[in-house]
Amino acid sequence: MYEIKGLNEECGVFGIWNHPESARLTYMGLLSLQHRGQEGAGIVSSNGSRLQGEKGLGLLSEAITDVELNHLTDDQHAIGHVRYATSGNKGIENIQPFLYHFYDMSVGVCHNGNLINAQSLRRNLEKDGAIFHSSSDTEVIMHLIRRSKADHFEDALKESLNIIKGGFTVALLTKDALYGAVDPNAIRPLAVGRMQNGAYVIASETCAIDVLGAEFIQDIHAGEYVVINDEGIRVESYTQETTTAISAMEYIYFARPDSTISGKNVHAVRKESGKKLAQESPALNADMVIGVPNSSLSAATGFAEASNLPYEMGLVKNQYVARTFIQPTQELREQGVRDKLSAVKDIVHDKNIVLVDDSIVRGTTSKRIVKMLKDAGANEVHVRIASPEFMFPSFYGIDVSTSAELISANKSPEEIKEYIGADSLSYLSVEGLIDAIGLNIDVPYKGLCVESFTGDYPAGLYDYEENYYANLSPRQKDYLKANKQFFDREGNLNVKSI
Amino acid sequence: MYEIKGLNEECGVFGIWNHPESARLTYMGLLSLQHRGQEGAGIVSSNGSRLQGEKGLGLLSEAITDVELNHLTDDQHAIGHVRYATSGNKGIENIQPFLYHFYDMSVGVCHNGNLINAQSLRRNLEKDGAIFHSSSDTEVIMHLIRRSKADHFEDALKESLNIIKGGFTVALLTKDALYGAVDPNAIRPLAVGRMQNGAYVIASETCAIDVLGAEFIQDIHAGEYVVINDEGIRVESYTQETTTAISAMEYIYFARPDSTISGKNVHAVRKESGKKLAQESPALNADMVIGVPNSSLSAATGFAEASNLPYEMGLVKNQYVARTFIQPTQELREQGVRDKLSAVKDIVHDKNIVLVDDSIVRGTTSKRIVKMLKDAGANEVHVRIASPEFMFPSFYGIDVSTSAELISANKSPEEIKEYIGADSLSYLSVEGLIDAIGLNIDVPYKGLCVESFTGDYPAGLYDYEENYYANLSPRQKDYLKANKQFFDREGNLNVKSI
Amino acid sequence: MYEIKGLNEECGVFGIWNHPESARLTYMGLLSLQHRGQEGAGIVSSNGSRLQGEKGLGLLSEAITDVELNHLTDDQHAIGHVRYATSGNKGIENIQPFLYHFYDMSVGVCHNGNLINAQSLRRNLEKDGAIFHSSSDTEVIMHLIRRSKADHFEDALKESLNIIKGGFTVALLTKDALYGAVDPNAIRPLAVGRMQNGAYVIASETCAIDVLGAEFIQDIHAGEYVVINDEGIRVESYTQETTTAISAMEYIYFARPDSTISGKNVHAVRKESGKKLAQESPALNADMVIGVPNSSLSAATGFAEASNLPYEMGLVKNQYVARTFIQPTQELREQGVRDKLSAVKDIVHDKNIVLVDDSIVRGTTSKRIVKMLKDAGANEVHVRIASPEFMFPSFYGIDVSTSAELISANKSPEEIKEYIGADSLSYLSVEGLIDAIGLNIDVPYKGLCVESFTGDYPAGLYDYEENYYANLSPRQKDYLKANKQFFDREGNLNVKSI
Amino acid sequence: MYEIKGLNEECGVFGIWNHPESARLTYMGLLSLQHRGQEGAGIVSSNGSRLQGEKGLGLLSEAITDVELNHLTDDQHAIGHVRYATSGNKGIENIQPFLYHFYDMSVGVCHNGNLINAQSLRRNLEKDGAIFHSSSDTEVIMHLIRRSKADHFEDALKESLNIIKGGFTVALLTKDALYGAVDPNAIRPLAVGRMQNGAYVIASETCAIDVLGAEFIQDIHAGEYVVINDEGIRVESYTQETTTAISAMEYIYFARPDSTISGKNVHAVRKESGKKLAQESPALNADMVIGVPNSSLSAATGFAEASNLPYEMGLVKNQYVARTFIQPTQELREQGVRDKLSAVKDIVHDKNIVLVDDSIVRGTTSKRIVKMLKDAGANEVHVRIASPEFMFPSFYGIDVSTSAELISANKSPEEIKEYIGADSLSYLSVEGLIDAIGLNIDVPYKGLCVESFTGDYPAGLYDYEENYYANLSPRQKDYLKANKQFFDREGNLNVKSI
Repeated sequence: MYEIKGLNEECGVFGIWNHPESARLTYMGLLSLQHRGQEGAGIVSSNGSRLQGEKGLGLLSEAITDVELNHLTDDQHAIGHVRYATSGNKGIENIQPFLYHFYDMSVGVCHNGNLINAQSLRRNLEKDGAIFHSSSDTEVIMHLIRRSKADHFEDALKESLNIIKGGFTVALLTKDALYGAVDPNAIRPLAVGRMQNGAYVIASETCAIDVLGAEFIQDIHAGEYVVINDEGIRVESYTQETTTAISAMEYIYFARPDSTISGKNVHAVRKESGKKLAQESPALNADMVIGVPNSSLSAATGFAEASNLPYEMGLVKNQYVARTFIQPTQELREQGVRDKLSAVKDIVHDKNIVLVDDSIVRGTTSKRIVKMLKDAGANEVHVRIASPEFMFPSFYGIDVSTSAELISANKSPEEIKEYIGADSLSYLSVEGLIDAIGLNIDVPYKGLCVESFTGDYPAGLYDYEENYYANLSPRQKDYLKANKQFFDREGNLNVKSI
Repeated sequence: MYEIKGLNEECGVFGIWNHPESARLTYMGLLSLQHRGQEGAGIVSSNGSRLQGEKGLGLLSEAITDVELNHLTDDQHAIGHVRYATSGNKGIENIQPFLYHFYDMSVGVCHNGNLINAQSLRRNLEKDGAIFHSSSDTEVIMHLIRRSKADHFEDALKESLNIIKGGFTVALLTKDALYGAVDPNAIRPLAVGRMQNGAYVIASETCAIDVLGAEFIQDIHAGEYVVINDEGIRVESYTQETTTAISAMEYIYFARPDSTISGKNVHAVRKESGKKLAQESPALNADMVIGVPNSSLSAATGFAEASNLPYEMGLVKNQYVARTFIQPTQELREQGVRDKLSAVKDIVHDKNIVLVDDSIVRGTTSKRIVKMLKDAGANEVHVRIASPEFMFPSFYGIDVSTSAELISANKSPEEIKEYIGADSLSYLSVEGLIDAIGLNIDVPYKGLCVESFTGDYPAGLYDYEENYYANLSPRQKDYLKANKQFFDREGNLNVKSI
Repeated sequence: MYEIKGLNEECGVFGIWNHPESARLTYMGLLSLQHRGQEGAGIVSSNGSRLQGEKGLGLLSEAITDVELNHLTDDQHAIGHVRYATSGNKGIENIQPFLYHFYDMSVGVCHNGNLINAQSLRRNLEKDGAIFHSSSDTEVIMHLIRRSKADHFEDALKESLNIIKGGFTVALLTKDALYGAVDPNAIRPLAVGRMQNGAYVIASETCAIDVLGAEFIQDIHAGEYVVINDEGIRVESYTQETTTAISAMEYIYFARPDSTISGKNVHAVRKESGKKLAQESPALNADMVIGVPNSSLSAATGFAEASNLPYEMGLVKNQYVARTFIQPTQELREQGVRDKLSAVKDIVHDKNIVLVDDSIVRGTTSKRIVKMLKDAGANEVHVRIASPEFMFPSFYGIDVSTSAELISANKSPEEIKEYIGADSLSYLSVEGLIDAIGLNIDVPYKGLCVESFTGDYPAGLYDYEENYYANLSPRQKDYLKANKQFFDREGNLNVKSI
Repeated sequence: MYEIKGLNEECGVFGIWNHPESARLTYMGLLSLQHRGQEGAGIVSSNGSRLQGEKGLGLLSEAITDVELNHLTDDQHAIGHVRYATSGNKGIENIQPFLYHFYDMSVGVCHNGNLINAQSLRRNLEKDGAIFHSSSDTEVIMHLIRRSKADHFEDALKESLNIIKGGFTVALLTKDALYGAVDPNAIRPLAVGRMQNGAYVIASETCAIDVLGAEFIQDIHAGEYVVINDEGIRVESYTQETTTAISAMEYIYFARPDSTISGKNVHAVRKESGKKLAQESPALNADMVIGVPNSSLSAATGFAEASNLPYEMGLVKNQYVARTFIQPTQELREQGVRDKLSAVKDIVHDKNIVLVDDSIVRGTTSKRIVKMLKDAGANEVHVRIASPEFMFPSFYGIDVSTSAELISANKSPEEIKEYIGADSLSYLSVEGLIDAIGLNIDVPYKGLCVESFTGDYPAGLYDYEENYYANLSPRQKDYLKANKQFFDREGNLNVKSI
């Protein structure tokens, strides 16, 4: 579904320790994380003495065949990964987990998120003779571990986790243990579960724990890592400099509705955000509420309930999408040919509609949907966005890293309303979002990372800093000045270029 | 999604005449019909002087590659087909459209539905020297046409349509014309649309017309066929012995919610059936309504609105399914491992739930879902089925042709309630269904084919008759005796074996 | 290797009855017949109660996978086929054996060779309602069998064999028996062998019998068919109108050197033809003899021995050929880039060479090889062809059916010598060829079919007749007039158009 | 053909500089080197500003598709590689050339042969933090280059070439130049050619130069490397410690007969070795000479000519081999089923045969061939081997690295004669081999590396030393003591463990 929005997260990770069906369960866990990455997948597994792996391009079902999965069926431990690939990095060499065979040990490793100092680390490592085989940040982590002077693998890992910056989770497998680590702000989530047979699983989302019938045990918090081995489970901190700032976008957009992050169910959060939105920005004369499938359906039902309006299926999404891009040409599009979404004429004709969406990134999709509804005979279309204005790029693992792509970086809501052809347009407030999620942790933004809405980057900017400040739009600058909500990497207000 | 239910229809057809992008548009039309068949697909196209085709196994995206589609891009006319294959007939030789090159003409042909006298026709043709290359009924049609003594193709087609029996639509392409025909009861639907450039399209469902931005023109009615050629469009009747009996299962289960059949939008019909169901069988102490994704969501929102209960996403379906069946083993299943559907613990825990589903076929899925909800902590689960008891097999193109598969053929609602572990179970009445669809045609069942609920087969049984009567269950016999609603092929009450 | 010459035969057939490893042995038999067809292959097998099959495009190793072969491993009887596809007929629908499931029996069938009245038979069958699914002659045979009024399959087969004309072998498999038939002139060969366990095999060439360690039993002669079933083996005649005329091209070019046809080993025949050629047309001042790999190597060693000259490897053929045609462009070719054949500079430099080849078809290959040798420094190149001038097209299963393709139809040896740039050019005489093969049967041409050299077609021309006479070149007409060696289909001299 | 012998060399390299069709020509060059490696292939190409590449598993035609080759068609410079993979290292990660993108440059690199100190270098590099992604020695070379402190790439390359030991050629491509290097003994060959347009090519064998119509320029000699860039061609020495010792096995077995190594044509050498063998060990009462296809055919014709015996095609090899191994089972083999080689009964029956083979490695193939000939009716079979006894393993790039595999390490010729069932068995003497090749360089063994016959390793043993001496067989020890022909890595006689 994420093709519609053009909003992509980088990957999902999974791990399991001590189950006779570890490879099959990893496959199933990854299948439930497939929404986090569809461009490649891999599994590395171990029988306690050696590691082996399989990986490939495309959806899990294409990336790993039955035959390949069967190669791994005798193993008891495994990690797995689904990858979203940014363009230009689509080769098999970037598919994770990476499996390294050293003279003294073997390691499988994969990560989710983005390291914001990877580029500078990489160059320094290369200058020191390191050879990289991919463009993946995961390799940087491995080089740091191998160049550590620490005597033990776990110490080398801790050391390396203190060097890398950004929003990330990392999963590692050796013949002796399964490791899972979370960045110092817990921007990216990682949960732990336990199966009936005592096997432990770790996963980017709890839906991958639930699908195995496993019991949720705990989240891994900011700056922590978990070690699971034959002696049991142990959670440690690799740094004390932590501030919880869980990515709000996980709740709004990325996570599956049945996942729970930090105690808050994603569907419930979205429904609540729809209700808050209805209170903040009601649509008084509307006949019905429609959600943009699939990620906005929960918010739309919340809006409908709070407004006492019927919730209707006015947009239908074709679940079958051509892998080989047989998209309508511009000429066909002008003749009215559509692809994935269809408006249902018999539902929307002559009606005043509230269209609930989770976010507006470029605005092009919203524009197309509004037009589609009007072409289908809708009378008025009132767009309600269940999150605040997406004004600032993200560098912590979301594939929107330049301001130019963000319509809200450059246009006001009124201008966007005109652009997309809506009859009205409102966003949920930052406060409304924070309330709807309801973490209530006593830190900035009550424990959320809302950098996309506020320009406040809890983990700093590092390699991206220079470029970021150089390219701020007038609207972004105005917002930052007005709100004074920005920090440099030491946590001080940054006034350099504004 | 149809794997869940084990309820499958046989295929979807599409045709287009006179568009420079006919192959690409056929591909897109088929994509929107993909829910009607995922086991194979094909396209036959023509430039007005010769016919050519491409086809393959699997989803459309697997069956026809970009390169193959490109072979067809210079053609202006096309027909296409998506196939659901009953087991044992999965070879490429059964994938349609079939393309025949005769010394005097070429013909492409495909069909949707089931011929109930195909077996006897086939045997008689073979006795007369005919050679069949597949197990598809489509071949029978072609043999009849070629053996006709009629001088013109259209006359031979008419003659052949009068010989075959059952529920079907047929699409044919010659270099001179596109033909689409519908059975004498209009059990299977076929709609006609017109594009902005004047091109005509025909399709099993209107969603394939809408997706092209084409305007809906008309349905092809019982016993009619349409001829589209360079002179325009012409609709003819091949028989006067017609009684409209549109498959109720198209509304309940098969069709896409955005399709409209005989003037009734499918989503609206389903929502209305949910409302009727809430009136007929309310669930008084429930906390929320949950629908089984995806086909029961419309009915569930109808039920929720009519009951003034919140509609919640208590079940989530993984849209990514392993093509290569990496299903959980029985042992894993007992450990709680699930596959496609997940119950959302944080939503359903401690709640009294109305679970709305569109139908119960074998009962196994319902049993699993109820257990899943209870395992997730649901207090009570009240199952409400938005259609009547599925008591009788179908022979008109639905893949349920033996009574043994149907739990309602053998168990009462009370017994089924026990079997699936629900706290209560109710079905929509036949009258309620007929009202919710609202065709209101002045013929039996107001224009619907409800044979699965009543045992009343509007097109007769033919080759299936003997077996059918021999295998009626006590419950089926009781029903038929009580309702006296069954006809032999001459339309008289059949009392033979009861 | 046959790409070089552009001379292709249509197919090889194989059959086996009553061996527990029938599918695997058929695969191995076909592998040894692979030189007869590389565009597709198939196997149909039976366990005595049902038939099943696998087939595919390309080399055997591509056409039938391990997994597919495994499907057939429980069967005891099988037939198989390797296909050479003429352009335009490359679809999977033409790959044999064809497997037919009728209401009363199942049949697998394949053939080798060409039916010269297939086109007229096909049209008449179509006029009578028959439907063809491929462009293969094999289908014609099956239609004839199914339309026969004979009571027994074997009688229907006999009847059909009397209707078809040309050069062919046919293999058929039913659950009850394996059949193999040979045309009334035995133009195409078929041999029978017996394995140690008593299983019988039939094959287009004895090399496929030898590879299985089976004992050669007999050839099937002109107008005969063999029936092999659980009662044993039986050879019958379906016609008395036979004249043995075994294709000389099988000896000269098509068959594997280790095969034996009608008692004559192919390598020995070729070597003998090289010796005869050396006697008829010695190359007095030559330093060495070189053969064109691979089919001319035997003849070249014969020439060398008879001339008392060293036989050298002055031409090397790359056994690895790009399937996907990455051929040198014309521009690269002019720069000296070659593809399959290379001249060995260090061998041929400054030498007078006898270049022995088995035939000249278009002359382009000979021209290229002579140039290649001269470019590599060869002094004189004396071309010796181990067969007579290839003046007339063949319609009995060789892919050279128009005179325009044949350089000898239009040019004299002197002209061809100039064209190919040779220092001298000689052909083996027809008498020399007949002597070298040495069949010595008391019929025209001592039992050989030498139509390509004499224009004398032992099985007539049928559908090809009109076109053939209309397009005779002056040189062909002169030859026919001078030799008076041509027959119409009644066996009379044909003087119509000359 | 190498499956028969189980004797494999590791790879072939190719390079081209400054041709508009560089990718296509590299493909064609690699095709002519395909006999050196069939398990994978790759091409890295450059347009002078960036490098890109394609690679894959299997034969060239499988490894690189048309589409992939087209990606490279705009480039002017390229290197390519065909790989023979030792078991366990068959992954795509080992397919070369490797393409590295560093912050300061990009490099493509591949090699042929074996580094005998790779394992110790690798471990030391890993201890120093290096990370390897494959098991290929090529990676070691790249790590050495990147860790060099030299200012210029060429200096770093020189430095690295002085660290690695063994028999190898290396090809490297940067945007600025093409490099080719040869080990200090020239064990593995590398030749340079020039095309008509001025483009330079380098290749493991001259046949890859010839196939492009290029002119042979020179061999790269022991301890040299060549640099080709836009300024022209330059050959340098990276070490003065060189002793020419060209692998005799290249002449005997690996190279294509049309290649020329160090001025000696391979076919001519083989023919000469056959003649020498006939002089040393004539077979007096024989009727004919047969060679084992394909590598022994030249030697066999030499033997035949020198003996004045007819050379016959008594063994035929099927050129079509099942990729998917459908080999006859042991049970079938006992029934006489064969696979690749067939004896021609009609040729060998009742004859006394000289069977010429190029070498005996394990003896199993020879045993099978002799049995095959006797089963086909041969009277006597006299085996003549056109090389000396293969007594010692090779570590310089031939896949025979343990003595246990070598029948001659453990058995005398008399014992081997019995084992293979021959009537007599003789080998060519070391002197005879050296004479037949005729390099006549004034160094040990006249410039050949004959370690497999003498146990004299010109480049030392390094990582293999300990294991080698520990596992010497009694027969090997006896030979070494008798001949005193072994050196330690300093060139002194090694007496340690004998």
